[in-house]
Amino acid sequence: MTKPMGPIPAGFTADADGMLLIGGRRADALVAEAGDTPLFVYDLGLVEAKIARFRAAFEGVHLHFAMKANPYLPLLKHVGSKVDGVDLASGGELAIAMAAGVDPAVTSFAGPGKRDADLEAAMRAGVTLNAESEGEVERALAIGTRLGIRPRLAVRVNPDFEIKGSGMRMGGGAKPFGVDAARVPALVKRIVKAGAEWRGFHIFAGSQALDAGALIEAQTATVALAAELAEAAGAEPPLVNLGGGFGIPYFHGEQALDVETIAAALAETLGKRPQVLANTEFAIELGRWLVGECGVYLTRIVDRKESHGKTFLVTDGGMQHQLAASGNFGQVVRRNYPVAIANRFGAGPESDATVVGCLCTPLDRLADDVALPDARPGDLVAVFLAGAYGLSASPQAFLAQQPAREMVVGA
Amino acid sequence: MTKPMGPIPAGFTADADGMLLIGGRRADALVAEAGDTPLFVYDLGLVEAKIARFRAAFEGVHLHFAMKANPYLPLLKHVGSKVDGVDLASGGELAIAMAAGVDPAVTSFAGPGKRDADLEAAMRAGVTLNAESEGEVERALAIGTRLGIRPRLAVRVNPDFEIKGSGMRMGGGAKPFGVDAARVPALVKRIVKAGAEWRGFHIFAGSQALDAGALIEAQTATVALAAELAEAAGAEPPLVNLGGGFGIPYFHGEQALDVETIAAALAETLGKRPQVLANTEFAIELGRWLVGECGVYLTRIVDRKESHGKTFLVTDGGMQHQLAASGNFGQVVRRNYPVAIANRFGAGPESDATVVGCLCTPLDRLADDVALPDARPGDLVAVFLAGAYGLSASPQAFLAQQPAREMVVGA
Repeated sequence: MTKPMGPIPAGFTADADGMLLIGGRRADALVAEAGDTPLFVYDLGLVEAKIARFRAAFEGVHLHFAMKANPYLPLLKHVGSKVDGVDLASGGELAIAMAAGVDPAVTSFAGPGKRDADLEAAMRAGVTLNAESEGEVERALAIGTRLGIRPRLAVRVNPDFEIKGSGMRMGGGAKPFGVDAARVPALVKRIVKAGAEWRGFHIFAGSQALDAGALIEAQTATVALAAELAEAAGAEPPLVNLGGGFGIPYFHGEQALDVETIAAALAETLGKRPQVLANTEFAIELGRWLVGECGVYLTRIVDRKESHGKTFLVTDGGMQHQLAASGNFGQVVRRNYPVAIANRFGAGPESDATVVGCLCTPLDRLADDVALPDARPGDLVAVFLAGAYGLSASPQAFLAQQPAREMVVGA
Repeated sequence: MTKPMGPIPAGFTADADGMLLIGGRRADALVAEAGDTPLFVYDLGLVEAKIARFRAAFEGVHLHFAMKANPYLPLLKHVGSKVDGVDLASGGELAIAMAAGVDPAVTSFAGPGKRDADLEAAMRAGVTLNAESEGEVERALAIGTRLGIRPRLAVRVNPDFEIKGSGMRMGGGAKPFGVDAARVPALVKRIVKAGAEWRGFHIFAGSQALDAGALIEAQTATVALAAELAEAAGAEPPLVNLGGGFGIPYFHGEQALDVETIAAALAETLGKRPQVLANTEFAIELGRWLVGECGVYLTRIVDRKESHGKTFLVTDGGMQHQLAASGNFGQVVRRNYPVAIANRFGAGPESDATVVGCLCTPLDRLADDVALPDARPGDLVAVFLAGAYGLSASPQAFLAQQPAREMVVGA
């Protein structure tokens, strides 16, 4: 039985031969240039279009890039130069960001398990720390005293709400992230009293949400919470990072997020914000929404085989590079990402096939019973939505297969 | 509410200080020797005990190591020298095996997506190819002709049965692995007629099974199927690889596998095997059962925090090193692996805690609401059952955290 796939994102077309074009370039030529499959191609033109769309909608709101979504250096170099800030999740990401030419002064560092060495490296570079606990604040203050550096500290808040229907819940109830809202005012007072530079709040309520209404509700609640906490702390926050949570459609039936509606609602909310936030800047931190749709994972068909009436297309890629597409990254039910035969892009479906990777495990499935044009060994399979949480979020060493290559186009 | 953990495997004790001993050595001393956490320690003494147990039970049956379970070079060097064969899943694993001093002549190579370059490298080294399709056989024959090498070819069979209750189904119905049993005799005839060296069958029906009865049933059916296929092909198989599938208990309520009962049943089955298998050797291919229990993942507590009445122990490790323990590697429902506070090993539980990694994702959970002795920053958390499908099966680059170290003890 044919199973549906998610929607292929806009911006991908074919040339007269039916070859998939990425950033205007033929998929087979990109593979030749990279040297081999498997290959991730990121179209920076699509990222720029997303940035432009954000800028047009969210006037006056800072745009941050959550680099955990895609730390590939040439991509980060490009995106980092076009956004207002980069959000880091580790000391390792700080090193990558600095190698990409990102100014540490516009970065902030969230993460519940920052080691002393991470804190020290970040403080030396002038990174804002989104403090995840009272203990972390004390460690940062002690390191600051030892090094003679004034720490730049924001407080990550564990809000009492979450984005309804978000793919991953980051707030609401007991969480390892941030400080429970009730304890935040005391912590801000402690930071201010200790002489650290207080940078404001980081309030992240969820991710991969596709419902504009739910995001509006969460952003409205976030602004209200920031005001309430600032009042209670008696300190105006220089910046409130509203988190992100903007999703992209991965699966059949999902619809793209209406960000313009969210922007309009946020403008209204900010227009009537309480006095304590009058001088506050606001940021939205995006990863998946900015770069998820720009990436295509190209892999080559090694074998086509039949088993009990079913056709399998066996590729030289798999879950070792695209774990999420195999359904093993937080999904409860496996559903199909959009895939296509890159060298017959736009051709109508001719038969059902299951696309698998080259690993000896039944988990390694890229598309299950999907309708595709007929394909054979040597053909290229394109797995879309590979721009965020792709290669870096996958078990690349598993079974010691051919490593994936990466490249950017459209810069 | 306290949730149960899986059983800590036998062979781990504490010294008078309450410090966990691995291979007779203190966990904290091992961390000091390795230089830092996170650290995987593999106790080769425990692997040797497993090998000895297999040898004592399965007289005359070859023991193969499925190196995909743990390709760490010092471990592979040791284990490779004590087993009768090593099973490979990629050209990359062949290179690692050769670096470990494994004789390619005792290796076999299974995997549905072997590229021509993989086939060529394996054939040059004298590896037996477990052919996964008719197309792969033709490619191997063509490469053999081109190189002047006689391919060593076994046929991987997709059996019509599976191991009941196995963790992962590898046979039964339409599968990307092997050749449907009905088409195998014709393929064997083709191999023999083409002048290749026919090496026999590889029949793998499942993995991570804990029910001896189900494994006995599968092995009995495998021997019968091998005989039937050999008769139909008119060719005696030199070797039948019966697959593996021996599981280890990961979760609360699971019991260790009774391998002696399986061995006795297999001896009986082989004792009365059909004439066509009279000169056949038999192999069992084990990964998880051999090495899974020998490994401990040690990570350090960076923060202890409370949120809405719940205690979180935040460590410097996580799913980037132990994806399976986080419940994101084929599990439908997340359950707790056995964990302990290594420096208070054997102390009774004092309170409930949730052990998380340092990643900014709610997926990064190592143990959920488990009863532990009280622990604080600086203490070491031990996650057991980390010897198979641990580091190499995890998204190590995710969030660019501190890399994990590995070491062997007890050699």
